[in-house]
Amino acid sequence: MCEATAYIVDAAGEEKLLLADVDVIEPEDGGQVRLVSIYGEQKVIKGRIKSMSLVNHRVVLAEA
Amino acid sequence: MCEATAYIVDAAGEEKLLLADVDVIEPEDGGQVRLVSIYGEQKVIKGRIKSMSLVNHRVVLAEA
Repeated sequence: MCEATAYIVDAAGEEKLLLADVDVIEPEDGGQVRLVSIYGEQKVIKGRIKSMSLVNHRVVLAEA
Repeated sequence: MCEATAYIVDAAGEEKLLLADVDVIEPEDGGQVRLVSIYGEQKVIKGRIKSMSLVNHRVVLAEA
């Protein structure tokens, strides 16, 4: 339904799929972002939220 | 549809409505976050994204 697909952009501007069906997004101390999918799959990445378009179900993060 | 309601939490932990029907969320330089609703209404706040639950259509920001 309203989950989003998270992508990560590397230093060269290359966009790669990070996690599908993302529900929870929580920036954490130390410049990390925690992502949890509706299936409970979790990823913690060193980076920051770059942009989000909820209507397009898109979350773009940038590598630290 | 998949827009979210954005709330802001102040230093005392009080949660207030910031903007409804949010589509675009973009952290900006200088510790700001830009929010744009599906109707084009825009708010830029000094603060950071605290947590998001896309399935619950909830975005919580914290004041700087």
